[in-house]
Amino acid sequence: MKTIIQSVKGTRDFYPEEMAVRSWLHSELREVSESFGYQEYDGPFLEKVDLYAAKSGEELVKEQCFVFEDRGGGWVTLRPELTPSLARMVAQKQNELVYPLRWWSFGPFWRYERPQKGRTREFFQWNIDLIGASSVEADAELVAVCIRFFQQVGLKSSQVHVFVNNRRLMDSELQSLGVTPEQKTGVFRLIDRREKLNPEAWKAYAMELGLSETQFDGIRALLADPDLWKKSPDLVRLFEILEKMGIAEFISFDPQIIRGLDYYTGTVFEAKDMDREGRSILGGGHYDNLVGDVGGEPLPGVGFAMGDVMVSLVLQKYGCLPTFERCPAQALVTVFDADRLPASFALAASMRQAGVKTLCYPDPVKLQKQLKYADRMGVRFVIIVGPDEAAENMATVKDLIRHTQSTVPQAQVVSTIQQFLDNPPVL
Amino acid sequence: MKTIIQSVKGTRDFYPEEMAVRSWLHSELREVSESFGYQEYDGPFLEKVDLYAAKSGEELVKEQCFVFEDRGGGWVTLRPELTPSLARMVAQKQNELVYPLRWWSFGPFWRYERPQKGRTREFFQWNIDLIGASSVEADAELVAVCIRFFQQVGLKSSQVHVFVNNRRLMDSELQSLGVTPEQKTGVFRLIDRREKLNPEAWKAYAMELGLSETQFDGIRALLADPDLWKKSPDLVRLFEILEKMGIAEFISFDPQIIRGLDYYTGTVFEAKDMDREGRSILGGGHYDNLVGDVGGEPLPGVGFAMGDVMVSLVLQKYGCLPTFERCPAQALVTVFDADRLPASFALAASMRQAGVKTLCYPDPVKLQKQLKYADRMGVRFVIIVGPDEAAENMATVKDLIRHTQSTVPQAQVVSTIQQFLDNPPVL
Repeated sequence: MKTIIQSVKGTRDFYPEEMAVRSWLHSELREVSESFGYQEYDGPFLEKVDLYAAKSGEELVKEQCFVFEDRGGGWVTLRPELTPSLARMVAQKQNELVYPLRWWSFGPFWRYERPQKGRTREFFQWNIDLIGASSVEADAELVAVCIRFFQQVGLKSSQVHVFVNNRRLMDSELQSLGVTPEQKTGVFRLIDRREKLNPEAWKAYAMELGLSETQFDGIRALLADPDLWKKSPDLVRLFEILEKMGIAEFISFDPQIIRGLDYYTGTVFEAKDMDREGRSILGGGHYDNLVGDVGGEPLPGVGFAMGDVMVSLVLQKYGCLPTFERCPAQALVTVFDADRLPASFALAASMRQAGVKTLCYPDPVKLQKQLKYADRMGVRFVIIVGPDEAAENMATVKDLIRHTQSTVPQAQVVSTIQQFLDNPPVL
Repeated sequence: MKTIIQSVKGTRDFYPEEMAVRSWLHSELREVSESFGYQEYDGPFLEKVDLYAAKSGEELVKEQCFVFEDRGGGWVTLRPELTPSLARMVAQKQNELVYPLRWWSFGPFWRYERPQKGRTREFFQWNIDLIGASSVEADAELVAVCIRFFQQVGLKSSQVHVFVNNRRLMDSELQSLGVTPEQKTGVFRLIDRREKLNPEAWKAYAMELGLSETQFDGIRALLADPDLWKKSPDLVRLFEILEKMGIAEFISFDPQIIRGLDYYTGTVFEAKDMDREGRSILGGGHYDNLVGDVGGEPLPGVGFAMGDVMVSLVLQKYGCLPTFERCPAQALVTVFDADRLPASFALAASMRQAGVKTLCYPDPVKLQKQLKYADRMGVRFVIIVGPDEAAENMATVKDLIRHTQSTVPQAQVVSTIQQFLDNPPVL
């Protein structure tokens, strides 16, 4: 036997079992996003590299993008994130769109990173943004969206939290410690790496940035202060609103939340497993200038993104994934022999017309084989039209769960199935 | 103002209006596919070039694929079609899967072709296959699937047809005309090009293939024979079954249908606009060896693929696209002032909890501006909580379609909306 050609490292095959999870996730995200009135949109999957050069961090483009030459010339890439496409799309119709704009999307992205637990090179991501509002209330709405998602899929506040911080608060605190604007990016990176480095390495990194011992102690004190948020009117207001919405139990203040991207300017947040296992589930924040870099007029907004891989692991861990049916069909119409096969196909067609998802065996094989197939596919009802039944336009409806059956006129097959469905199975 | 960075030629932006069409199409395809018991699956979007070298036509790989070097080494491509990934996935689990296997998918594909009406370089495609059955009944099922799709979206048999032919029939007819096995591929291409070339050019092409005048006349006669199908037991049986299923009105025999791919071996079909405008809507057929080329044991099957671009044009032309709501929200809760904003957010949260899709204005702007926003977004209900109402825990529900309103306790807002919805608007 020849060797099977392998798939590309970091990509996934979605067999029906895996696809059921992806489709379920998409429909849950649709329900949550639409419950807040968000409209679904999508950008192209291929974009010009220039688009990311304008908006994304340099690391993302240079180290993580799949970049190649378009056959027509020019450098293109598989999108590593959605925000630059969103910015382009908004800029293109900036004066026609109605603000505040509420848009959501769920689609594929690509990043050349080392595949590991919770990370693949080809992944799906939920993106949701509220654009054209700069209030902290807008930020509260997005935090509420992600908590509503958690509640809807059954995650509890003992399992996941949204950890919130504010860039302006951190800016002013760092400023009073004498951190210069030039040092700020470095210090943000320092804070971001706190949990990734051991204390010595972390301190060494601080010293490399040119911080004094006093500044270093000051930063450590900041990060240890659970009441720091009280100095931020934005955070005070944010927590007040989330409290009123009845979801404060899902929120924690965390001064270590910074978010990598330069363009966040206010509230920033990440959702994490309370066990602190693995990567963040989602992350986002408030920005002041979505479209300026790609040629539009500056617009503020708030948004977040959630990859499908990490959240699926968390949902699995906490038993929140539903059980999916093996096959969508509710019924199988058996085939007696080649002569009577067209009649079985016709009965199946009429059942579908009446709204019953129906399989028909495509070969006149032995009945036993067809019944075994129905069982392996998890199909509950089997419809048998043998020669006797066919002669009288009858059919036998077998319920494989209740182990009962009934022979009825073919026109009553659908209503018989309905009756069996209405009566819960005797276990 | 700076120039906005352009999107890549042949890709599309899906603003909410376009996305609504794509999502609707996907859900219609899900409904049709599931009504026949098919399971949704998907392959990776990035695959190794070798996979296509094994299964796809050379033209597809050399001229139409976006090929590039993986950062980890090796040549990869954006998938131009799904069948090779399907073959790989089936081969990988060939002994675990339950046959007949019924799988469907809807996802993105890329081909570097000249963008034109009905064709983009990045497009979506419905793929559906029945694998592990080699009967003509299996073929009939797939033809029935595509007709059910047409019926479900409201396309009539006067507007679209499925044109059917059979490769074995054509093989034997060509053989009796003395066409050699070596000439066969060329003659199939000749037949395929009949409508694309003028009669002189078409004849010249036939002569180049080394056909005699007699052979050429014989082929012309074949293609003009409306009863040719009667020589094919498979086609006779196929039409009998489709007749019994009540969908024969959508079917035509067409000896010119060949399908480009080498791997079809029996029934082949294409659906087209009856005006013969534009490209085919979908195409597919029966094959004998799905997985042999990629390392599995040979498996027969039947399947077809439908791109989203051409079918959307056809649906639009015949008025079959539904009218989509501008925004999913049913209600907007207005905000009176900054102090009362948290209370509005709380009311909106409780409405969502009760199943009403609800927007809340994220800034305490003038009421007039909020009402105008609701109107522009097409939101039917506006909930107003002014200071008087707030003091008594009341709210006013305004129905912007019926131009009526009612002031009720906040706990009754949802039931009041339900009442308004149950009473059809007075026009």
